[in-house]
Amino acid sequence: MDDRRVVVASVRPHVHNGRFAVKRTVGTRFTVDADVFTDGHDSLTVVLRHRLAGAPRWEEVDMASRYNDLWAAAFIPEQVGTYEYTVEAWIDHFASWREGLAKKTEAGQAVPSELLEGAALIEAAAARADASDREWLTVRAERLRAAAPEEERVREAMEPSLLAVMRRHADRSRAVSYDHPLPLRVERERAGFGAWYEMFPRSAAPRDGRGSTLREAEVRLPEIAAMGFDVLYLPPIHPIGATHRKGRNNSVTAGPDDVGSPWAIGGAAGGHKSIEPALGTFEDFDHFVAAAKREGLEIALDIAFQCSPDHPYVREHPEWFRKRPDGTIQYAENPPKKYQDIYPFDFECADWRGLWEELKSVVVFWAERGVRIFRIDNPHTKPFRFWEWLIEGVQRQFPDAIFLSEAFTRPKVMQYLAKSGFTQSYTYFTWRNTKSDLEAYFTELTATDIREYLRPNLFTNTPDILHEFLQFGGRPAFQLRLVLAATLGANYGIYGPAFELCEGRAIPGTEEYVDSEKYQVRVWDRESHVSIRDFVTRVNEIRRAHPALHQDHSLRFHRTDNEQILFYSKTSPDGADLVLVVVNLDPHHTQEGWLHVPIEEFGIAAGQTYQAHDLISDARYFWEGDRSFVRIDPQICPAHVFVIRRRLHTERDFDYFQ
Amino acid sequence: MDDRRVVVASVRPHVHNGRFAVKRTVGTRFTVDADVFTDGHDSLTVVLRHRLAGAPRWEEVDMASRYNDLWAAAFIPEQVGTYEYTVEAWIDHFASWREGLAKKTEAGQAVPSELLEGAALIEAAAARADASDREWLTVRAERLRAAAPEEERVREAMEPSLLAVMRRHADRSRAVSYDHPLPLRVERERAGFGAWYEMFPRSAAPRDGRGSTLREAEVRLPEIAAMGFDVLYLPPIHPIGATHRKGRNNSVTAGPDDVGSPWAIGGAAGGHKSIEPALGTFEDFDHFVAAAKREGLEIALDIAFQCSPDHPYVREHPEWFRKRPDGTIQYAENPPKKYQDIYPFDFECADWRGLWEELKSVVVFWAERGVRIFRIDNPHTKPFRFWEWLIEGVQRQFPDAIFLSEAFTRPKVMQYLAKSGFTQSYTYFTWRNTKSDLEAYFTELTATDIREYLRPNLFTNTPDILHEFLQFGGRPAFQLRLVLAATLGANYGIYGPAFELCEGRAIPGTEEYVDSEKYQVRVWDRESHVSIRDFVTRVNEIRRAHPALHQDHSLRFHRTDNEQILFYSKTSPDGADLVLVVVNLDPHHTQEGWLHVPIEEFGIAAGQTYQAHDLISDARYFWEGDRSFVRIDPQICPAHVFVIRRRLHTERDFDYFQ
Repeated sequence: MDDRRVVVASVRPHVHNGRFAVKRTVGTRFTVDADVFTDGHDSLTVVLRHRLAGAPRWEEVDMASRYNDLWAAAFIPEQVGTYEYTVEAWIDHFASWREGLAKKTEAGQAVPSELLEGAALIEAAAARADASDREWLTVRAERLRAAAPEEERVREAMEPSLLAVMRRHADRSRAVSYDHPLPLRVERERAGFGAWYEMFPRSAAPRDGRGSTLREAEVRLPEIAAMGFDVLYLPPIHPIGATHRKGRNNSVTAGPDDVGSPWAIGGAAGGHKSIEPALGTFEDFDHFVAAAKREGLEIALDIAFQCSPDHPYVREHPEWFRKRPDGTIQYAENPPKKYQDIYPFDFECADWRGLWEELKSVVVFWAERGVRIFRIDNPHTKPFRFWEWLIEGVQRQFPDAIFLSEAFTRPKVMQYLAKSGFTQSYTYFTWRNTKSDLEAYFTELTATDIREYLRPNLFTNTPDILHEFLQFGGRPAFQLRLVLAATLGANYGIYGPAFELCEGRAIPGTEEYVDSEKYQVRVWDRESHVSIRDFVTRVNEIRRAHPALHQDHSLRFHRTDNEQILFYSKTSPDGADLVLVVVNLDPHHTQEGWLHVPIEEFGIAAGQTYQAHDLISDARYFWEGDRSFVRIDPQICPAHVFVIRRRLHTERDFDYFQ
Repeated sequence: MDDRRVVVASVRPHVHNGRFAVKRTVGTRFTVDADVFTDGHDSLTVVLRHRLAGAPRWEEVDMASRYNDLWAAAFIPEQVGTYEYTVEAWIDHFASWREGLAKKTEAGQAVPSELLEGAALIEAAAARADASDREWLTVRAERLRAAAPEEERVREAMEPSLLAVMRRHADRSRAVSYDHPLPLRVERERAGFGAWYEMFPRSAAPRDGRGSTLREAEVRLPEIAAMGFDVLYLPPIHPIGATHRKGRNNSVTAGPDDVGSPWAIGGAAGGHKSIEPALGTFEDFDHFVAAAKREGLEIALDIAFQCSPDHPYVREHPEWFRKRPDGTIQYAENPPKKYQDIYPFDFECADWRGLWEELKSVVVFWAERGVRIFRIDNPHTKPFRFWEWLIEGVQRQFPDAIFLSEAFTRPKVMQYLAKSGFTQSYTYFTWRNTKSDLEAYFTELTATDIREYLRPNLFTNTPDILHEFLQFGGRPAFQLRLVLAATLGANYGIYGPAFELCEGRAIPGTEEYVDSEKYQVRVWDRESHVSIRDFVTRVNEIRRAHPALHQDHSLRFHRTDNEQILFYSKTSPDGADLVLVVVNLDPHHTQEGWLHVPIEEFGIAAGQTYQAHDLISDARYFWEGDRSFVRIDPQICPAHVFVIRRRLHTERDFDYFQ
């Protein structure tokens, strides 16, 4: 039995009612709403409480009543770390009383008894107050009881200052809090917005028939930075195994010169805490990281928890692998396929605690060397609880650590990895190429609960995935997929230089590159006339300049009358920056049609002229009304990225349109 | 740290993750689904576990894998009471191994090592098994290790009987259960399906200018039963207060002959555990209940927790009421309105525990007298926790007790009362009269999570509500609202005889009846030519005969090309009974249009003829294809209620259509 009358029925957002954290980035407004009500008609006070987890005291923000018992408030988390938030509410008898008093006096009723009730409420508050407020309140209570004319006493009672002081000393003895505090993981800005470039360093600047070292690869850093990328992601840089090494184009036997797959980790020179000798030394690595940093590029490393048969772990910790009855170690398999160059860890082994600790120490090792972004290979083949534990532990030590989950797997598995702590997640973007698929998928990602915990990172291609849309679509296909990735996703990436050089050659019937860099060193013609480097540069410039593109929650799709023309918008949190993207999804033909511009939603009046400035072509259009015609020749440019300028009220504004 | 690899991510249905119970009725299939997966590619076994709360052991049903890591199973709760259910899952290494073995042998690979692994798995299961299975399994393991040809040993390994015995002795040491068991409240059939008739007994058979007694009111029972009602609901039957008694048409002062409102409870003759002397004695009451029972009618009583100034509680327990500073007791008010004939209880009083116990004892008092259905007046003005506690306590003692919540209030408040334990809830049905409103509201009630805990009971009218649709729509309005209530809702009710006599006179600009029975005795002309008694009878017959109408979850709205024609279907859980309802929502004009019949959804082939039998007019139509034309003259009958007969394949079926 419990006589408290307030109900805090639900608090949003939340992930599985607080089992997992909602994700946000520092400095962005976090809005919380809640269903709060009580029986009867009493007034409520509702507050949003928040603090950094473990902080001694809560901050409080008054929540405002919206409609239908919905209350809302917001705060801006200013630190990286885990916050907690909850909602507390109580019946405000003074406010209920004050409201009744107003209605009764307006109706001309005498209120002698009511004034005495008010005085009693004020005296009760005085008893809870500190000395100065106590005195002040006591005086007020006395005045309500005094012999002065009723009208005068009512005026006293209705004073806003009295309401404010009463609010400060509210009776919270029967306040009700939500079930439990909910966690909010606040991460640094890069977690929410960034352009990634994936590159094999050994193919960055190969010479004399051998792969480039990290030192030699530095030559490419200025160019990548100039294209506007923020993160440079390197496939594994560890020693590569020799036993069962794969040859070019994934052939089963490697030739003497074959360099092997970087994901077959571990050899004579060491394992996950070592560097492949062909790439250089730790000194070279540190130099590379520093050089990248000077260019404004942050390095992301690949974490692939698996071993080649030559990995030191295989000798030193055979207990971490599964033994077959014949005494050999179980290689990876997907029956009937065998991957004899890879030994998976046995997460069901008796020493799983030792294994977990060692694997975490790998991440910590590189974090201590200054790396803070990790792209996790195949996370869905290791236990979810392991990731939750590892990420939590690493972020406790390195709060700015970012983890990208490579999980092109079943949707619920992908989502659960995100819930378990991954900062960002790969998506199905590469396989979404039609208008209906793109609209459905990105609506799901940005307008359902998924958005609270899964941050999409849209890769246009990877060393494993060259989608047939790119195989057969030519240069316009690369351009339009770039625009989609870079504007649908605040986080996106390309695997280059294959991407900007429009490499479309695949092994027929597969998504595998011909002459894949996974198995060989490639020499790229960076100055090829097909390169879309300048286009990539322009798109990344637009991204940086426009806050609307720094987040995904505001994404909205809009109607067009052509199934090949995709039309969507993003708006900055303050509403000032409005970007419209129009993409011809057909890389082969010119498409035209009408856009239905939701001007009301955009705050544009029916007769108002507004400017659509195409940030790619730099063309400016004056539009009016809710329909606009577009005609897009993919050979010229497959997309418009418009910024909308809505103010055209004064002569001064004319400058603004220039 | 925890090395278990399975994730049971969510279990549905649930209400606030188990904070409240899901509701069902006895004997109906309860389907549960869950998101269950593990890392990697191992096989899973997933079971649905359920038991009556407190039972010593769980029942288990194997769950079947659907798509996208969704698993489902069902069970039929056979008892009234609270069940709990959960989902448990574990990795089935034997099944994984067996699957791999099959793929490898199909691909022609040798499997000597695999057979030894299988033998080890079988031996491990033998160690867990009882004596007889242990021996059987040990023999199997030996055969896999034997010198026999590999092909023969593989055949042994793949035997279905081996899989079954291995399943019985699965290694569940790392099994994972959902967060916690979820509660399921199973109630008797009447909770899920019933037609209610509300009646003031004093106006049932008045004579000589005075109201009828309960004995006299019995005369109406056969007629109400003949109309097909299941529940007869009586407004409060307790002594009515004299102080500040309201007169006819809610006038502030009552004349000497005015009988007063039954909701002003308590007088010289007693309070909530007494009977108004003008209605009779406890003996009369028991006689009335028994007479109703013989007619197949169950009595529902009104529980209105409030007092007239003359209620014994006011003298005996002044501490349960709020005192004003002038020493008087606070009457009900909604400033500036005053209700001086009603004293509300003060649920914030010091003796709230005593108050709660006394109020619960009122319900128990009548339950002990044989009443099991309670219609709760104004529950939203008493604490939610109070109701949760009261209903839980009463149902522990009387598992068949049914509580109908009279809450025409804010949607979240209405929903929270339902979550708190109310069996059924009044709805906004009376205020939903257009096609779009009806479709939106009933989709919300029957196709969202609300349906798991809120059972709608659709009243066409109440003593407080005569909607203007009935005020101005004439007889067709009453007929069409009856069809809507009776077919949209498995539970519905009318307040009669005002309803079946098409009483439409209201105080202008309000929903209040002229000469409301709340304040006076009414003499009704039951044989009036406007009576729709026979129509009500027919509709209730149809309801009883058609299992499709005994539940709400299968409700689906279908398209028509006329905004005045509403078209929907319900299907029985076994799919056999399919009822289509077509209503002309315009009581004044004939409306016509095309129905879009979703034949594919109904399991009807494109060229197949099916019969639509209108159960109201008894007309039979042969339809084909997905379009059908209707023309509905409200003066003849404003609705069709079709049963669809889909089998017409053989001559024998011809009989079935007669």
